[in-house]
Amino acid sequence: MADFELDPRLARDTAYIGHLAGCQLLLMNDARYPWLILVPEIQGITELHELEETAFSEITQAIKRLSKGLQSMTGAQKMNVAALGNQVPMLHVHIIARDKDDAAWPGPVWGHGVAEPYSNHARRELVAKLQRTLLCD
Amino acid sequence: MADFELDPRLARDTAYIGHLAGCQLLLMNDARYPWLILVPEIQGITELHELEETAFSEITQAIKRLSKGLQSMTGAQKMNVAALGNQVPMLHVHIIARDKDDAAWPGPVWGHGVAEPYSNHARRELVAKLQRTLLCD
Repeated sequence: MADFELDPRLARDTAYIGHLAGCQLLLMNDARYPWLILVPEIQGITELHELEETAFSEITQAIKRLSKGLQSMTGAQKMNVAALGNQVPMLHVHIIARDKDDAAWPGPVWGHGVAEPYSNHARRELVAKLQRTLLCD
Repeated sequence: MADFELDPRLARDTAYIGHLAGCQLLLMNDARYPWLILVPEIQGITELHELEETAFSEITQAIKRLSKGLQSMTGAQKMNVAALGNQVPMLHVHIIARDKDDAAWPGPVWGHGVAEPYSNHARRELVAKLQRTLLCD
């Protein structure tokens, strides 16, 4: 969308992976959890239920694909899928691979401790792996 | 489903509202937030992405309808929609109406403080209102 601009906090906290279903797919820069964020490129929307029927269907299908793919790739014991937006209203969906020995288990990841950024090398490697695994057919 | 049995912790913590899209619709017994839980009646499933195509589509449509309806009914400033399941693995989707003066804002509701149960009268009244608002066409 010509007039779409990613929220600056999302831009600051993530690395770009690619595009899918009219959304930007981002990697949260926090090495404690494999954590994707899917952001529909529709300016001004804050709730999943505000999506038009076609976009809603495409985006929920993308969530399904990403959740399945990330769990398969990581071997995570549980996936967390959530659209919250209390702090960043721009509609974005969290898809997080959770394990019973991760930093926040069994609590939610939001607001737990402080993010541990990837090294530049590790982030580039992971983004490349996510591109191959989640975006290529 | 003949062999479906609601997780005992979900049963303990909620009141029954009704059925929708092959799911039980429940009210979390916590008066701090208007908080719905949607539970597909499919034994043994823990992830959204494990739903078959038809059930996935019906359930995501139900989530859309409930999120829109609950926001409209409550005037909530933000909706939180999430499938976590770290503590109760049985697949269940939270649909929560959030306000900037609620107990946990802007954090997530899970693990924040202690639930404040409704009085019997208030719970019955709210369940009846939710049935009229969310389940009747």
